[in-house]
Formats: sequence, structure tokens, C-alpha cells
Amino acid sequence: MLKPEEQLEQIRRGSEEIISEEELLKKLQKSYETGTPLRIKAGFDPTAPDLHLGHTVLIQKLKHFQELGHQVIFLIGDFTGMIGDPTGKNETRKALTKEDVLANAETYKEQVFKILDPEKTEVAFNSTWMEKMDSSDMIKLASQYTVARMLERDDFSKRYKENRPISIHEFLYPLVQGYDSVALKSDVELGGTDQKFNLLVGRDLQRHDAQAPQVALTMPILEGLDGVQKMSKSLNNYIGINETPQDMFGKVMSVSDELMFRYYLLLSDKSLQELDALKKSVADGQKHPMDAKKELAMEIVARFHTEQAAIDAREGFEQIFSKRENPDDMHEHAMEASEKLLETIVKGLKFLPSNSEARRLAKQGGIYIDGEKTENIDQTLQPGEYILKVGKRKFAKLVVN
Amino acid sequence: MLKPEEQLEQIRRGSEEIISEEELLKKLQKSYETGTPLRIKAGFDPTAPDLHLGHTVLIQKLKHFQELGHQVIFLIGDFTGMIGDPTGKNETRKALTKEDVLANAETYKEQVFKILDPEKTEVAFNSTWMEKMDSSDMIKLASQYTVARMLERDDFSKRYKENRPISIHEFLYPLVQGYDSVALKSDVELGGTDQKFNLLVGRDLQRHDAQAPQVALTMPILEGLDGVQKMSKSLNNYIGINETPQDMFGKVMSVSDELMFRYYLLLSDKSLQELDALKKSVADGQKHPMDAKKELAMEIVARFHTEQAAIDAREGFEQIFSKRENPDDMHEHAMEASEKLLETIVKGLKFLPSNSEARRLAKQGGIYIDGEKTENIDQTLQPGEYILKVGKRKFAKLVVN
Repeated sequence: MLKPEEQLEQIRRGSEEIISEEELLKKLQKSYETGTPLRIKAGFDPTAPDLHLGHTVLIQKLKHFQELGHQVIFLIGDFTGMIGDPTGKNETRKALTKEDVLANAETYKEQVFKILDPEKTEVAFNSTWMEKMDSSDMIKLASQYTVARMLERDDFSKRYKENRPISIHEFLYPLVQGYDSVALKSDVELGGTDQKFNLLVGRDLQRHDAQAPQVALTMPILEGLDGVQKMSKSLNNYIGINETPQDMFGKVMSVSDELMFRYYLLLSDKSLQELDALKKSVADGQKHPMDAKKELAMEIVARFHTEQAAIDAREGFEQIFSKRENPDDMHEHAMEASEKLLETIVKGLKFLPSNSEARRLAKQGGIYIDGEKTENIDQTLQPGEYILKVGKRKFAKLVVN
Repeated sequence: MLKPEEQLEQIRRGSEEIISEEELLKKLQKSYETGTPLRIKAGFDPTAPDLHLGHTVLIQKLKHFQELGHQVIFLIGDFTGMIGDPTGKNETRKALTKEDVLANAETYKEQVFKILDPEKTEVAFNSTWMEKMDSSDMIKLASQYTVARMLERDDFSKRYKENRPISIHEFLYPLVQGYDSVALKSDVELGGTDQKFNLLVGRDLQRHDAQAPQVALTMPILEGLDGVQKMSKSLNNYIGINETPQDMFGKVMSVSDELMFRYYLLLSDKSLQELDALKKSVADGQKHPMDAKKELAMEIVARFHTEQAAIDAREGFEQIFSKRENPDDMHEHAMEASEKLLETIVKGLKFLPSNSEARRLAKQGGIYIDGEKTENIDQTLQPGEYILKVGKRKFAKLVVN
């Protein structure tokens, strides 16, 4: 085991806040002296097992703890998932069945164990203890917190001030999450910055139960490919961990140099020393930022696929983008001389979802025929062979008869 | 069955608010047409089964419903009673055991059935359905109300504004009470004016459960003997329903004429017509207010004791107070000539609890020897016989040797 101070340095990496470092150091010291691993909890919502890199920031931090020899607990919050949204207002939060939960948990594990070591990870479901609670236990749990303190939570206070409804059961969920820490006797709980309040509730409930309060460690919310908004499916600025090696590689390559270093900090296994050296060599001009980005893309593809897939993805990328060559495996599309380019792009190849999007992209100069920008996509082509490029990464060989 | 409009008139008597009369009338009409009694709910706290007249205002109203042919449900809120105060701050709200609850319920029934007909009263315990609820049912129940609406309740909004703590479980109690109405399918719920909010919660939860909402009927809080503050044990301005006929009679006789008519309205079985006639004859000077008060005192004593006890109490009262005679059954107290009056009053007769109280009463002119005010109670008496009067109602014959 590393010395407590050295452990703390690794844990601190990329974190937003640790409440408190002093307590964490004490826990690490005690763990070091007694040879007892700390219990590290992170909770996950069982409704959305389809992870993107944004979710893996937290899992990466769990991995740090795991590599330091601590006991990682991957907690699936199935109890509330099975309740769903009882008000019925939020249709996307339908109540899950036990089968849904177990199926989602399998998908989760499959994805998460690309990062964590399954042998060293405890998977827990909070229904295990929550289902044993009756209504009077719930009332007793609710008695441990005041309305005023709960209303201090950012989103609650905002909604309350704006006269937007808060259902009373929403006050119970942070208490359930907090109680999970009591049930698991967790030493540290990890969460996004938006989880800070809930992590602190866990501390209070543990104190109430005469346990040493857990350390609350928050990780930043990862920025999406645009570098501004948080990574999310709905903003379409994400890298899904089930995407193809090629897409994953290409998406990483599309980020800014600044965001690349942010991703390195939060997602890479490179040590802080290695990162410092890398930054220095890019700053000195010894290393081209594009090469640093390729290394990051390789690391990420290899994590979720294989080393070989990463190598292939890089080669594919280089062929298309770096060498500006046409890829080997280019799709051939046979078409009549009477077919307009627009039809080929939208209906024939389905490169773009609608005519209007195709016209927009053409206007922006995103469509090429044999390397020449082509704004007029209402044209037809003379018989012969052409290379069509749509946007940055879509290619086809057009064979006009 | 009386006609709906006539029923409504009796129900309206003395009530503070009916939400709404229109709904109530419709329910009464339907009940009248179908011959189905309405279900009338009133909830009682199982921690305090020792009733005074203040509590009986509500029970008196239940009796009106019972006499009109409706089904009265005497609900004992044992579920929350068995939880007690989970914060542990309120020591007077210790958690009750099942045995406590049952014992209290027996005392309750014994007292309440002096007014209600036991054959026609349904006694229910809310633990019956609440104990079947698990924590997720509780969460679903909590989802039916918003924080903002709950904070509208007078005491909550006051405490919140004054930064006095409200524990979250306190938000759950009105929901439990409201759910009782769902479980009982009540048509009308009765409560004190301080219960208005909770009665309305019941309406909302019934609507949510696709039931016709209950009518909320509030009764005023009865004023105590002083005519100003509410009747309560702690203010010592109450008439307990287990008090002796003599005390009960005397206490009723001590109220103002105005309060007497209030008590008539809220506590008497006299019809509104009879009450009007009574008021008129007192106003005309045809009847002395004292006689009207005696009739009220008789009615109340007879209700909680017997007709004969009421007659005896009146005669005892008339002997002592009206005729200013000494009562027949006066206690004889033999004493030495060396004994001070003070010792006789406090130690010998135990008419007053302490020397200081005796001195205070003497100073106020509340102690008489043979009808003469006696401020000096450190005196001794010459051998002979004396009539001692302490306060308004304590007499003894002193025999000094």
C-alpha cells in the first residue's frame, strides 16, 4: 500500500471537492496502519445503463481507489428506480420491474468492468435494505432532517423560490441515498458536483447512527465535445462507451487542445507526472498537439475495445483525415445519371437525415465531389466514377451509369 | 330519516366551517334517497385519553350525526402514537406500545360511550392499514402533495418564517391522517378548527384515489371556565368528564352567563328551538340566569354520571352556595387548643397544599371562621365549635378541646 499522503495525492487528482481532506487523510492513515481497506461507495441510477465518457469520470476515480487497495462498492439505486416517478408527470421515469433492474445491472456491469476490476468490486442494490423498511421506519428516517435544511439544496431552493412544485417524496430521496451510506458503512462516497448535497446528507445520517461520517468526494461534470456544455446524450456532444472504435477515435480527435488536457486529467490512466511532461513537450513545440490527441484517443479506444482496435482506428483516421486519402473500404454506390446528388446523399446513402440538412451543409461548404466543394446538390452527374465526401467523415464512391 | 335540509340544520349547529355545505347537502340527499348512511370520521390521539368537556364538543357533533342515522367512525390514531416523537425532543410524546394503545383505547371508549351509542359506533385503529404500508408506499403517498402546499399550513409557515425547525416527518403526518380518510372511505371528517388543513389533505388524497372527497367540518375550540382561553388541563380551566358530580356542577355554575349560552350551544342536547326560547326568557327576565345555568349543569352531570347524581349535586350546591347554609355532611375535625389554624388547614384537613398558599388565600380574604373573614391564621382557637370555610367550597366543623 502507498503511504497515506501519496494516496491522497492520487485521490485528489481531478476532484472538485473533498469534504474534508483532513478526515480523508485520517481515514487513510488508519487504513494504512491497520491494513483495512476503506469502503468507497458510488451510487448509480438503474434507469440509464448506457454510459458515455461523462459517466466514466467517476468510475475512473473509483479505479484509483481500487488500485490503491480499497474496497469499491458499485451501488445500484434500484429501490427508487422501481418506484419511478410516482406523480406520473415524468414519463421517462417509469417504474422499473425487478427484471428491468437486473437486466440493466448486467449492462451496467459489462460496461463498468471495462474500467473496474470485477473481482475487487462489490455490487450492491439498495432495495436489499430499503425493502425491509416499513412506513414507520420511513417516518423515523424523515425525522432526522429538517425541511429548512432540505430546502437549502440548490435545485430545491431554486424551484421553491420560483414557485415550481416540489413533491414531498423528493425530500425523501436524498434521505434514502444518505441511508444507503449508513447501511453500507461507507468511508467515502463519490459523486458528481450536483450530488454534493446528497453526499452530505449521508454524513449527517451516519453521525445520527453513531458511525464515523463518510468523506464526500465530488468529481466535476465532464464537458462534452463542444468544450462548453456538459457531456450528454440529449446535447449530442457525447462519446458513448459502446461506440465503434472509429467513431470514438474520431470524436476524441475533434476536441480542442485545451479540452484534450482536461480529458487527459479526468479520463486517462497516465500519471500526473506523465501528464506534466506531456503538457511541457506540447508547450515547447516538441510534440504536435495532434499526436498528443491521438495518444489519448488510442488509450480510450483500447480501454473500451482492444489495443488492436485502437491501432486500426488510428490508421483509419490517419488515412482519411491526416493523409487526406480515400479510405480502402469505401462504400460503392451505383446510381442512374438522372438521380440528383441530393437524392443520393439523403435517400440513397442516408448520410444526412433530410433534404434541408443536406442543403444547409452544401451551403456551408461541407460537400465535396472529387475534392471540390459543391454547393449545387440539385445537379446530376455524367456517367463515370466520383468520390463523394459529406461532412468530415462520410465518404462514398459514386458509380454513375 | 329527517329530510336532508333538516339534517343540515342540525349539523350546522355550532360548527365553525363546513367545506362545503353544498357538497354536504348533496351527500345527505343521496344518502336519503338510497337509504345509505354517510360515513362520519373523527380521529383521536391515543396518548391522551383523559377527556374534558373541550374534547366532547366534537363527540357531541358525532352524536348529532349518529342520531340522524349516519355511521360514526371513532378513529384512534395509534400508528403515529406508536412512533412517538422520533426526534426524541418531545419527551411527552414517547412511543406507545401496542398494550398502551389498547389500554388507552378502553379508557377512551368508556368515556366516549357516555355520549355515543356503542352499538352504532365503529371503532377503528389506523395501524390496521398503515402497518401494511412499506417504505415505497410511503414514498408514493408523499408524492401526492407538494412542499409549498404543506408549508401553507399555519403552524408550519409560522415556524418556517421564524427559522424554527420542522422535521420532514412532520410533513408525513397530515398525509397519514389524510390517507386514513381514503382507507375508511369517509364522507365527512370532523375536527377542531386547528385540524382544518389536515381535513383538507384528506379531501385531496381521496380525489387522487378517485373517491368523492369528504366534507370537512370544523368545530370551534371550547373556551375554558375563564371564557377567554381554550379549555385545557395545563391552563386549569377545564371540566374533566371524570370529575365528581359536585365539582362538575360547581364548575359549570362558575362560568359567566355569556359562556353559559356558548356551552349550551356546543354541549347541550337541547334543540335550537329550545335554546332560543331559553335565551328569550332569560332576556325577558322571566328566568333567572342562575336557574338556566343550573339546568345546564344538571344536564352535563347527568350525562357523565346519573340523573340522581345530578339532582344530588344541585341540592348540595344550593345548600352551600345559594342558601349559604352549612352542608349536612360537614366533616368534623377535632383539634387541640394549642394548634394553629394554619396547621389545621394544611396538615390536619389538607384543604390547601402548602403554608404559603394558605397565607396567600388568607390575605385575599378567602378564609372564614363562623362566616367572618380571618386573615390571621397563626392564631389558635379557644375550646368550642367553629365552622371553617376555606375558599369557595371547602368546609369543616372544628371541635377545639
